Amino acid sequence: MAKKSLPLSKVYQLIEPGPVVMVTTSRKGKPNIMTMAWLTMIEFEPPLIMCVMSDLNYSFKALKETKECVINIPTVELAKQVVGVGSTTGSKVDKFKKFDLTPEDASYVEAPLIKECYANLECKVVDTKLVSKYNVFILEIIKAWITTSKKRQRTLHHCGNGVFVVDGKIIKLPFKSR
Amino acid sequence: MAKKSLPLSKVYQLIEPGPVVMVTTSRKGKPNIMTMAWLTMIEFEPPLIMCVMSDLNYSFKALKETKECVINIPTVELAKQVVGVGSTTGSKVDKFKKFDLTPEDASYVEAPLIKECYANLECKVVDTKLVSKYNVFILEIIKAWITTSKKRQRTLHHCGNGVFVVDGKIIKLPFKSR
Repeated sequence: MAKKSLPLSKVYQLIEPGPVVMVTTSRKGKPNIMTMAWLTMIEFEPPLIMCVMSDLNYSFKALKETKECVINIPTVELAKQVVGVGSTTGSKVDKFKKFDLTPEDASYVEAPLIKECYANLECKVVDTKLVSKYNVFILEIIKAWITTSKKRQRTLHHCGNGVFVVDGKIIKLPFKSR
Repeated sequence: MAKKSLPLSKVYQLIEPGPVVMVTTSRKGKPNIMTMAWLTMIEFEPPLIMCVMSDLNYSFKALKETKECVINIPTVELAKQVVGVGSTTGSKVDKFKKFDLTPEDASYVEAPLIKECYANLECKVVDTKLVSKYNVFILEIIKAWITTSKKRQRTLHHCGNGVFVVDGKIIKLPFKSR
């Protein structure tokens, strides 16, 4: 999927609606992927994200040690991969191979972009104070990519146990900032 | 809207999909409402939520002082109220009156439930260490309510500037916990 740079000031528009994401890391030359649903924006610019990664996840050690990752946003076409990646562990499986996903070089981090995802956010861990108590990492997005396709991209929202709501209609209401 | 108690172990299923919510507080006998889109689960049980409330919000002082709030989840039928509540300040306006919303008594907190929302989560602030740096509060949900209606409830996901994606179709994929 061809991508272009997305201004960092617009990153919140991708995360705020609450899509499930796939997080890539790379440790000792070995890339991995996990599925993540617990994350939120906490600052517009520079864009900061707060996310939960359990210390039971194989990716946890990679994120903690390398302090880098990529947040990849899948569309509904990747639903099977999202669930597959979330149901297997990188300690035993090369998830890129198993789920037919393509790693691409990022610009500023070792972790790869997932080519098939419509958007990719290169992140650095900027605060680890909450890791020991809550498994919460604070990430700064340092580079963002989005597909050049004009087609509407429908994301997935996880409701638990493999049930997802897919993006439906879009509504726009008159809105003024105070 | 008639409500029943929702087991706390199921609260994550409401928040994980990323709906926009309306947060109620009450300070010195004066209830208020704000719209919030930056929140995530961080623990299943007891259910913990991490949310961002700017110190520019009128509700900030109420949440910080009373350490209580209710997270109310609106459906698409309340879209106008969601935007209206998010575009006005409680310092000047009684938002319940202005937006024709009905406060109902909560069980464990002073902040009211919004009757018209399909789910209501009574919360206590349990950690304020991140407030000064990030405006981030950690909330424990101590009581949860959900509509008794069997009708499907479609929530809103905010994409910025008054643009919302409404819940679309539901898909269920085979899923096994590791």
